Amino acid sequence: MRIALDAMGSDAFPAPDVAGAVLAAQEFGDTILLVGDPSKIEPELAKHKTAGLPLQVIPALDIITMHDKPSVVGKAKPNSSMHIGMKLIKDEQADAFVTAGNTGAALSIATLYTLRRISGVKRPALTAILRVGERAVILLDVGANADSKPEWLEQFALMGKIYAKSALGLDDPRVGVLSNGEEEGKGNELVREASALIANLPLRFVGNVEPKDLLSGDADVVVSDGFVGNIMVKSLEATARTVSNLIRQEIMAGTLTKLGGVLAKPAFDRVRKQTDPFEVGGAPLLGVNGVVIIGHGRSNDRAIKNAIGQARKAVSGQVIASIATGLQERVETERR
Amino acid sequence: MRIALDAMGSDAFPAPDVAGAVLAAQEFGDTILLVGDPSKIEPELAKHKTAGLPLQVIPALDIITMHDKPSVVGKAKPNSSMHIGMKLIKDEQADAFVTAGNTGAALSIATLYTLRRISGVKRPALTAILRVGERAVILLDVGANADSKPEWLEQFALMGKIYAKSALGLDDPRVGVLSNGEEEGKGNELVREASALIANLPLRFVGNVEPKDLLSGDADVVVSDGFVGNIMVKSLEATARTVSNLIRQEIMAGTLTKLGGVLAKPAFDRVRKQTDPFEVGGAPLLGVNGVVIIGHGRSNDRAIKNAIGQARKAVSGQVIASIATGLQERVETERR
Repeated sequence: MRIALDAMGSDAFPAPDVAGAVLAAQEFGDTILLVGDPSKIEPELAKHKTAGLPLQVIPALDIITMHDKPSVVGKAKPNSSMHIGMKLIKDEQADAFVTAGNTGAALSIATLYTLRRISGVKRPALTAILRVGERAVILLDVGANADSKPEWLEQFALMGKIYAKSALGLDDPRVGVLSNGEEEGKGNELVREASALIANLPLRFVGNVEPKDLLSGDADVVVSDGFVGNIMVKSLEATARTVSNLIRQEIMAGTLTKLGGVLAKPAFDRVRKQTDPFEVGGAPLLGVNGVVIIGHGRSNDRAIKNAIGQARKAVSGQVIASIATGLQERVETERR
Repeated sequence: MRIALDAMGSDAFPAPDVAGAVLAAQEFGDTILLVGDPSKIEPELAKHKTAGLPLQVIPALDIITMHDKPSVVGKAKPNSSMHIGMKLIKDEQADAFVTAGNTGAALSIATLYTLRRISGVKRPALTAILRVGERAVILLDVGANADSKPEWLEQFALMGKIYAKSALGLDDPRVGVLSNGEEEGKGNELVREASALIANLPLRFVGNVEPKDLLSGDADVVVSDGFVGNIMVKSLEATARTVSNLIRQEIMAGTLTKLGGVLAKPAFDRVRKQTDPFEVGGAPLLGVNGVVIIGHGRSNDRAIKNAIGQARKAVSGQVIASIATGLQERVETERR
């Protein structure tokens, strides 16, 4: 397998990206194509023991920042690591592309300039895998489409089901719709119309899912409008951080609580690791015609390695072909 | 001042409701009208020292539960404590109504059967006051309207500004719109159209507010669609509870961390009090023609007393008259 990695992706690029590539090459043995500015990548590579490891540098000289407008960057920076990395998939030089960079830019470059959509896909969805205790839940869309139609959510449900097989190893995941109440009939117009469509799909539909149900693992795949999904994920992360900070402040406010805090620190650290971010490093742009995994901007080397791991699973699980087939079957069922 | 209280409101009614009324009568000296089933209220009152306190019982024999459908209950149970309590305002027998009961039922009974809307109000909004460190932020709508129009959000901004004066003591609050990114141009169609309208209002508009900005106190009033606001508030509460539970589990998993947990317990308890629920007990249905304060179903006696306190502030701050005037001025400005 050959996986292209955006070496200029993470907030602290290229150090975590390159270190993650080295870890992945060691652990998985796949070829990692490091895409970006060689004059930045090579000195970073020199810090690691890379002899014999399947690592290659692919030059790409335009750099996309978090401040670049997604709508502009596709045209303005045609030689970015994202363009070049995704073109590698298109040209069958790579099996997947992984980036911890600007999500909006990746979405725009994938759908408008390089890979484009899988045939039959109405809109691609940005996916997040959230930790829920010992399990995980796939939430989509978390930001690709701010205004969605019921038919798009219907496809998200189908794509989420298919992705749950490779990502979570679930053949028959429970699929729900994010809503403001569990009861049937709750939700806004979009949720109610999408639910009616999803109920007819060949999948285990569990109906409305509230935030608390999502966090207690009552569903494996939860679909939503990209605006609502984005606010939900951001609320989770902001709240987890706020609660952690409050606890730290309150513990530091007294001598005994401070001592208690020192003793309990390993427990806090484990919780922070689980909840900040809530997201498992790396989730795909589903619906794009190629495996594109987006990691968190704050990724460290291990998070980059995990994102590469997600890419491997999606490639070996044949997610793209399964989505194409799944949508095709759906169209044929409708014709009958 | 006379404040009507739904004695059958909280999840554990009537004990916390009655105890809260006693606390409020002691502290504020206002007359509290306890509305509900006298055969349930009187034995509860007998448990407290009520001699000389301005407490009255007003009979209302229909009982609304959390399982009652809001759309049905208005007609089906015309003698509920909610109906009778709100009619007391209409008949000028009470200055405000406080309930910790079914929110949807309160909204439906207020708008369709008793108080109705303030003249000029397009839709009432359910409001939440969230704790943000030492400060508070008013979020609306958190559930009255699942599908909203830009003009409704525009009015929510104006009503939120007016309410911030009595609730938070702020003359010129910073008003923002809940969105999926801070940058201008982010948001869905509703957010962008509402922002354009709010920018023309006579208030301090701070634009888009993300969940993290809201939690760091970057705005005093944040408006949103009721569906999104509801999911945001529910996400905050579910996450705070999940993080607390995880910390408890991890602390209990080791001997040293367990000891640390015992020492640090006062700090945790303070944080839990601040974040579970995140909401300050009691926030109004804004836009309804009368002060109606909705408390949390899990309210204890102090939360009920605080909700009554919110009602007093809204009455003495003349929130209803101010909203009517504010909307009238707005209409006149538009005509010019």
